[in-house]
Amino acid sequence: MTSELTERKVITPPHRYRNNDKAVGVGNAFWDRSEQEGVAGIVAELDNGILRTGDGHEFVNFTCCSYLDLDSHPEVIEGAITALRRFGVLDHCIPRSRVQLPALLELESSLGELWGADVITAISAGVASAGLLPLIASGHLGNGTRPLMVFDKNCHVSMAGAKPACADETEVVTSGHHDMDQLEDFCRQYQRVCYVVDGADSLGGYAPVEQLAELQEKYGLLVYYDDSHSVSAFGERGMGYIRANNPIRDERTITIATLNKAFGTSGAAIVLDGYGKHSHRVIERFAGALSYSQPMNTAAVGASLASAEIHRGPELVALQGRLNANIALFDSLIDTEQAGSSYPIRVVPMNDETVIDAGRRVYQAGFYVSPVFFPIVARGTAGLRVMLRAGQTVEQIQRLCTVLTEVGAPAAKASP
Amino acid sequence: MTSELTERKVITPPHRYRNNDKAVGVGNAFWDRSEQEGVAGIVAELDNGILRTGDGHEFVNFTCCSYLDLDSHPEVIEGAITALRRFGVLDHCIPRSRVQLPALLELESSLGELWGADVITAISAGVASAGLLPLIASGHLGNGTRPLMVFDKNCHVSMAGAKPACADETEVVTSGHHDMDQLEDFCRQYQRVCYVVDGADSLGGYAPVEQLAELQEKYGLLVYYDDSHSVSAFGERGMGYIRANNPIRDERTITIATLNKAFGTSGAAIVLDGYGKHSHRVIERFAGALSYSQPMNTAAVGASLASAEIHRGPELVALQGRLNANIALFDSLIDTEQAGSSYPIRVVPMNDETVIDAGRRVYQAGFYVSPVFFPIVARGTAGLRVMLRAGQTVEQIQRLCTVLTEVGAPAAKASP
Repeated sequence: MTSELTERKVITPPHRYRNNDKAVGVGNAFWDRSEQEGVAGIVAELDNGILRTGDGHEFVNFTCCSYLDLDSHPEVIEGAITALRRFGVLDHCIPRSRVQLPALLELESSLGELWGADVITAISAGVASAGLLPLIASGHLGNGTRPLMVFDKNCHVSMAGAKPACADETEVVTSGHHDMDQLEDFCRQYQRVCYVVDGADSLGGYAPVEQLAELQEKYGLLVYYDDSHSVSAFGERGMGYIRANNPIRDERTITIATLNKAFGTSGAAIVLDGYGKHSHRVIERFAGALSYSQPMNTAAVGASLASAEIHRGPELVALQGRLNANIALFDSLIDTEQAGSSYPIRVVPMNDETVIDAGRRVYQAGFYVSPVFFPIVARGTAGLRVMLRAGQTVEQIQRLCTVLTEVGAPAAKASP
Repeated sequence: MTSELTERKVITPPHRYRNNDKAVGVGNAFWDRSEQEGVAGIVAELDNGILRTGDGHEFVNFTCCSYLDLDSHPEVIEGAITALRRFGVLDHCIPRSRVQLPALLELESSLGELWGADVITAISAGVASAGLLPLIASGHLGNGTRPLMVFDKNCHVSMAGAKPACADETEVVTSGHHDMDQLEDFCRQYQRVCYVVDGADSLGGYAPVEQLAELQEKYGLLVYYDDSHSVSAFGERGMGYIRANNPIRDERTITIATLNKAFGTSGAAIVLDGYGKHSHRVIERFAGALSYSQPMNTAAVGASLASAEIHRGPELVALQGRLNANIALFDSLIDTEQAGSSYPIRVVPMNDETVIDAGRRVYQAGFYVSPVFFPIVARGTAGLRVMLRAGQTVEQIQRLCTVLTEVGAPAAKASP
């Protein structure tokens, strides 16, 4: 096997849309260092909002996306249990296009009523995007015209990961971040364009939804939003930043969102307007894993039905209010680029050399915040990522901010 | 917008690895007809093994992949509930590489002990394949050499769907179904080859695991198996056909399997041997949605822990025995190509013109079997797909076979 082996073909990869050499090379160094330094690879039990490791260290999670703490809401957990007992299975394995229990339909109907839309569920937002984007690329979801697929360069990897599949169905380009001029140029050149973008970025910030609406009106632009970081946390009945601000509610807008963050459960929602039954069937039958793989299980469905009920009442408004108050409290103490935004994520700027040590000290003081640093972000932009939640107490936030200040975070410019 | 629009660019798609025009064009006609004829699009409640539609029609599901009926096992459901109460959340949303509850680790440890392997969980087999195959393609999972990716032409769409992503990391070809000569040719030409194949096909039949083991020994071939249709149903402690028959238990074999079929829960297992901690971390951090999207929820984890316990005891052996007896009973009454195999799926041959009507008559008589016909399969190969389960009674199977015979199914050659 030895002499012959050396003569066999060695492959040069195209790397047009992805590059694992780079991703693994860059990312593994980051993660290895994070784990060695004790700011990743942590295992802990959750008890009444406090995490506790095997050796007894207790801390509050400030990097959890359950922004309203609905994940641990007793009604949500009881909803899951009720559904398990009612349906008697987590799933009765058969494609839903053939035979389905009413579980998914009930949830889709509930979420549809909640947000005044047509909703189709998926097991995760990643699965939704991996399934929907190639269908959009081929023109089977949309107005029938095969669009140029324009991926915002910062769009989440769950969307960017669909580029190779989309590129086999149409042309694919990567645009500058929120570059509306470039996008309009594409709209002038192509019969149809689809722009793929985060509704709310995972490092803070919203999509330019009003400017995009203008391009949608002018050119028939289709916009695909992943609004996972703002659904539930933002807007009437938790409809999310995009739905709350986007006047285009027809086939030109497709929004997906996880139910695993502020919504507090598992799964994802595909939120549609103006797509008829034909398109819904095309999604169920041909949107990748939506057709051939397992759906949300009944526990997730039951929890989601309970969370939807909470979204209909005053408790959601109260939780959003508490989240906003916590965000405001944090902003009154620590200065970040995101200060003043309704967005629950803050990146506390730190020195490249000391960011990990800072993260470790914050953790030892009883708070988990996630350090981001080179090579994951550019040199000079290191920081500690902080996520506010409704359930964090005033005292916890104040203590965190005291510790952050001690490890070098800039105090708010206009402290109260 | 009208005159200008016609001058804008129209795109011609490459269609090297996928073609939605064909998939949707062919598939939608099949599904529309199935739904119109009442043999798809059925909604029914499950009660003690019987499905009941809104208008009161009752039927037994003979197209469900829960081959051992573990999906409705009381201990499995109670396992889900116990875990929900213990962990208090379906998920506490944060990447597991940073902070995780012990839920997934406990399940991975349990499944690892069960099958004598290293196990990593995923939310679904589709997500596992979509994440792992590009990592294998780039050489980051395997022996470090970037392989030629050879996809069996019949491999499930959840694997075939990864071709475009893999093709950006290496060369990709599609081989004849189980064509060992062609595969050996590739092994002679390339430094490293990875063959992607179903362990157990969804239309019946197993991979040639012994022949593949020879190629693995001779050339260092890496084989990627999806053994979703045989795990739990086959082998000691339900290890599945591949693990039970494959002598190669090192980095040259990677097997994945859903936990959503015979295992009776939700999620999926990646079954590894001889991969160290470094590779496990690479999977958790870089195998697509395994790193950036939601994991199995705690209800699925708890149900799976309970199912794993059942797999350790005599009940699993009894259930496998009942499944095998049901398969043998069916084979004693109806002739199919699969007769005599331990595989729980049978395709009952039918006439192209009458297959849908036959499926409808069987459904009206109280049994759901799924008609497959042109354009989903070639003309002349239409049939009714039947899946046997441990929980179907002798009387139900006998009645089904009587009805199948009435609608034109060939009687077994050597009826008892």
